[in-house]
Amino acid sequence: MNAPAAGQEGPLALICGAGSLPLAVADLVAARGRQVLLFPLQGIARPEDYATRPHTWIRIAQTGPFERAVRASGCKEVVLIGALVRPSIWQLRLNWTTLRLLPRIVAAYRGGDDHLLSGVAKLIEERGLSLRGAHEVAPEILVPKGTLGRVQPTEHDRADIALGLEYLRVTGPFDVGQAVVVAGRHVLAVEAAEGTDEMIARVAELRANGRIRAATRGVLIKAPKRGQDRRFDLPSIGPRTVEGIARAGLAGIAAAAGGTIIADAEQLVQSADNVKIFIVGVTAGSEP
Amino acid sequence: MNAPAAGQEGPLALICGAGSLPLAVADLVAARGRQVLLFPLQGIARPEDYATRPHTWIRIAQTGPFERAVRASGCKEVVLIGALVRPSIWQLRLNWTTLRLLPRIVAAYRGGDDHLLSGVAKLIEERGLSLRGAHEVAPEILVPKGTLGRVQPTEHDRADIALGLEYLRVTGPFDVGQAVVVAGRHVLAVEAAEGTDEMIARVAELRANGRIRAATRGVLIKAPKRGQDRRFDLPSIGPRTVEGIARAGLAGIAAAAGGTIIADAEQLVQSADNVKIFIVGVTAGSEP
Repeated sequence: MNAPAAGQEGPLALICGAGSLPLAVADLVAARGRQVLLFPLQGIARPEDYATRPHTWIRIAQTGPFERAVRASGCKEVVLIGALVRPSIWQLRLNWTTLRLLPRIVAAYRGGDDHLLSGVAKLIEERGLSLRGAHEVAPEILVPKGTLGRVQPTEHDRADIALGLEYLRVTGPFDVGQAVVVAGRHVLAVEAAEGTDEMIARVAELRANGRIRAATRGVLIKAPKRGQDRRFDLPSIGPRTVEGIARAGLAGIAAAAGGTIIADAEQLVQSADNVKIFIVGVTAGSEP
Repeated sequence: MNAPAAGQEGPLALICGAGSLPLAVADLVAARGRQVLLFPLQGIARPEDYATRPHTWIRIAQTGPFERAVRASGCKEVVLIGALVRPSIWQLRLNWTTLRLLPRIVAAYRGGDDHLLSGVAKLIEERGLSLRGAHEVAPEILVPKGTLGRVQPTEHDRADIALGLEYLRVTGPFDVGQAVVVAGRHVLAVEAAEGTDEMIARVAELRANGRIRAATRGVLIKAPKRGQDRRFDLPSIGPRTVEGIARAGLAGIAAAAGGTIIADAEQLVQSADNVKIFIVGVTAGSEP
């Protein structure tokens, strides 16, 4: 673990989006003895998740409360977690009047998510803060290489995984989805703006309609895009992913080792074992 | 028009799948004075479409009735139209006992649609018949280059089209979908096993949920896969495509010129004009 000793760094500001991942990261950082300031994003994070923890609600385009709290605490480092991944990113578009306060973000939208995220990173860094990746402050959240639970992928599953990784490699430059479902060496579904959960639900529907052969299982393959800034945009898998995979009758999940986040690995692996689904960390073609 | 004069060729057998395209092709071929034998596929073609025309129902794995009718008529040429494109192709999987009669087709399934179609083509050709493309016997069905109706794509639409064509070019080798929706230079949806209509419905849903900015229109881009055997697997656009595009709030349709089929161009262009949607035939990057 290369994280500096507690106390050297000052408090860490977590800008928190949807899901349980921000809280898991907060707990891991706090367990190292470092103070964490929570800034859940209004309209994206769920109020009930923050009811029992000190926090400051912020809006994407109203940085005042965030800046005041950060300065008062002597915080120098910020992590964006769970917030600016799809589909949450689309919700920002609803609040058009707010967005107009930050013309550079609006401009960045035109170029896809990567540009938007770079714009947000720039804004943070221009305020003298350093943007860190969640995996830098809590490396435990990254998927390791190899099988995580008791269920192993078969040879057929491995062929599906290889095809899926190759598909994600060639489509990486398009700033599109980070996931694909491959079954029987056939690409069944490709994620774009709808998000991973909805793509998996589509596969469940294809199976319910008899459009996938009963004998064919299939795999969800997730990998970060090539050139992706890993400080804020790593793909993640969680309880909803495992549930969706089970419903879709898929055999398992292959996630880029060191390039995918798991919020609560122990619990997730146990629930995957329970429904006989594998989770494997794989080396993506474009990764070192 | 290079089609040989009527009378030289003998009757043409049309194996008919779903939709209005087989009947449109039948009418165009008959208008040249050539006899057409209709073989709608059971479970795929709609009985009411064939009620007023002579026809022989066939099953994918029961070739007896087809072979007898073809031999009796002196027919030497066969066209597969509308039948073996997704999602119809998946319905075949339901009839497992029937499929087992043709082990080679079953084997071909494992490699994706292209392999399946090659298998069917081989079976037909081994019976001494020649497999022709619908666009060879009725070239009027191909999308020409340029704008078809009164609505023109804007500069923004053209940028979306270029991005979509490039996406389809790099994913061509994966034997996956033939269509993509791009809006504001952002890939919103990628077609795989679900089919074009369902992918367009997904974009309508994204828009209804506010996940596409109101100002962003977007384009459906359709192109044949690289190396695709054009005798039976050209993408097509029809009335349902136009309806779906209008519902999804997209600006128009870009289809590979000479590589996409329109069943009834005149009627389709009129309904596209009515809802202010463009239809443009474009040159795909991988095309000559």
